[in-house]
Amino acid sequence: MKFSIKRSSFIQGINTVSRAISSKTTIPILTGLKLTVTDNEIILTGSDADVSIETQIQASDEDNELEISETGSIVLPARFFSGIVKKLPNDKMTLSVSNGFQTEITSGSSSFTINGLDANDYPHLPEIDNENEISLSGDVFKEIINQTVIAVSKQESRPILTGVHFVLKDQMLFAVATDSHRLSQRKVALPDNNGEYDVIIPGSSLSELSKMISDDNEDVKMKISENQVLFTIGNTYFYSRLLEGAYPDTSRLIPKESETNVQFDARELLGSIERASLLSHESRNNVVKLTINANDKKVTISGNSPDVGNVEEELDTKEVSGEDLEISFNPDYMKDALRAFGQTMINVSFTSPLRPFTLVPSEDQENFVELITPVRTF
Amino acid sequence: MKFSIKRSSFIQGINTVSRAISSKTTIPILTGLKLTVTDNEIILTGSDADVSIETQIQASDEDNELEISETGSIVLPARFFSGIVKKLPNDKMTLSVSNGFQTEITSGSSSFTINGLDANDYPHLPEIDNENEISLSGDVFKEIINQTVIAVSKQESRPILTGVHFVLKDQMLFAVATDSHRLSQRKVALPDNNGEYDVIIPGSSLSELSKMISDDNEDVKMKISENQVLFTIGNTYFYSRLLEGAYPDTSRLIPKESETNVQFDARELLGSIERASLLSHESRNNVVKLTINANDKKVTISGNSPDVGNVEEELDTKEVSGEDLEISFNPDYMKDALRAFGQTMINVSFTSPLRPFTLVPSEDQENFVELITPVRTF
Repeated sequence: MKFSIKRSSFIQGINTVSRAISSKTTIPILTGLKLTVTDNEIILTGSDADVSIETQIQASDEDNELEISETGSIVLPARFFSGIVKKLPNDKMTLSVSNGFQTEITSGSSSFTINGLDANDYPHLPEIDNENEISLSGDVFKEIINQTVIAVSKQESRPILTGVHFVLKDQMLFAVATDSHRLSQRKVALPDNNGEYDVIIPGSSLSELSKMISDDNEDVKMKISENQVLFTIGNTYFYSRLLEGAYPDTSRLIPKESETNVQFDARELLGSIERASLLSHESRNNVVKLTINANDKKVTISGNSPDVGNVEEELDTKEVSGEDLEISFNPDYMKDALRAFGQTMINVSFTSPLRPFTLVPSEDQENFVELITPVRTF
Repeated sequence: MKFSIKRSSFIQGINTVSRAISSKTTIPILTGLKLTVTDNEIILTGSDADVSIETQIQASDEDNELEISETGSIVLPARFFSGIVKKLPNDKMTLSVSNGFQTEITSGSSSFTINGLDANDYPHLPEIDNENEISLSGDVFKEIINQTVIAVSKQESRPILTGVHFVLKDQMLFAVATDSHRLSQRKVALPDNNGEYDVIIPGSSLSELSKMISDDNEDVKMKISENQVLFTIGNTYFYSRLLEGAYPDTSRLIPKESETNVQFDARELLGSIERASLLSHESRNNVVKLTINANDKKVTISGNSPDVGNVEEELDTKEVSGEDLEISFNPDYMKDALRAFGQTMINVSFTSPLRPFTLVPSEDQENFVELITPVRTF
């Protein structure tokens, strides 16, 4: 096995697959990065058993300056190998394997020899031969992920809640996550897709995947087998295991009616919540209180900590209607929810001080809803 | 006490004195930030008992938009107070103290009330009435600090070595630090200063101070009393305690003669050392080896780790003279030393494989020297 390559192209590939490589794995060979050289490409693979990433560097793309002299494959210690390639002195580098698994990496007058491992011992990636593929533009898919993963549970007590529930049915894709204190639900119409899926994808896998979706808005393709999902972005394949079990029925959690409605600028409300949480974070029961006076169209937020002090702020609202209300909630849930909206107007709808309330975009209300359960303070 | 101010000016002052405030102090009031309002300025103070910083915001500088309605002083919990001021919604803010120590901070429609402490309980800053002051341009002083603190000891076993030894004598300022494995010495001529000083300033204080010296190259003034040093930068005063005790005599440590001399580009050598240390870091005795063949004008660096592999690189040298040599050393000491030189040519002079070697700039060799003790590997 021997090739020379432009170092920056190679580094990009190494960085991509390194996302899946953990030094904490219990399977020693998975601390390595697998390199396979064929007649016309290099294939890099990284895996932590839950997530596997494979990416290809093509010789046909002249920008890679890839010259292959000999095919073969090897597994190299990922952390060192990556460190070495990044520190090499020249723009180009050569890698060759000889004497079994001894790998020589040269660039300029610098020459590294490192011990590799047999690529035959590296686990095989799952095979996914489902014909039905979901294809979405990168920015939409990234938005779906970022709007739902905020609500996945961080606790392993109910493992199923650490995932996002994806359902494809009636040409509509639903993504829902809840940690039982809050819920995020996103819908996207897929008019050309008649498939049916019902899977739970680990939130941690989706967060990693989201970081790999670049801003050039390349399509993301998604394919599902019995216990694995495969995402394809350009030359890169991202595999994740699925969570097994039945996801709770979340459809009945979202209230259909409301008593009090307020319209906010999401970015401005976020600023107010951040200020109020400075003090609530210091008190034992991290809550802020919203006081809605519908007659005066006045909404006030307050937070306090017996040790430090208190804060009160009158909020700038666009519309207030319905009943007066006092409601307390965890400001951190609210911050996560508001960040997922970005810069937009939102409608917040309340029923009573102890019933969950919802946030939806003022336009396109059907497609995205966040639900937050209040906190009892009396 | 009451004033209103442009928030960005106030934040700058808070950030400056916060450098000295630690939440880990054993003196509770020192977790606070002291505010004193006089007729024409606000004085902010922060301290961790070892280092104290005081800065002034003048009403006469219109850019501060400072309007003082009532003088007074208060101590506010530094971390919250800083967090609150940074998060306020408007460009301007108002602060007022009433009801004893209750402090109200308002900006836009946001209003915080926090509990302050009695400023009379805050420790007094030391008085330093030494007439003799050293004045140096900011960039020179920053360079002196950064070139010497790298060699201070991180271990408390010999506390005196955690400081930098400053000596002013014969119109020359010497700064020396050593952790007994390496040494850095910098000299600066002060032709107008006939004072005499001999003090040891904690390296940690100097590192903090260095971060406060901005790039606009304002002068730094230094004044010394029995157990304190005061640095003045513009409107800011930086106090540090001095280390007590006698600093070891370092003058005889620097070899006068050498057997082997090599000239390097400091930046290129740094790159080579960084590569070699990738492997040395993985071995138990973190060393790299330099092999100098004076006849062939060839210098090679190598590093190896039995578990991972090895690296060898021929170095680009400008001049090689004297005897052949093989010498091993800790690459981390070398990296620190080379970074302190920046982009310049340096002369490295060796006597024997077990004697310390020196690095000096190829130009201006007298003013800066770094010394590194090699490691015995046989």
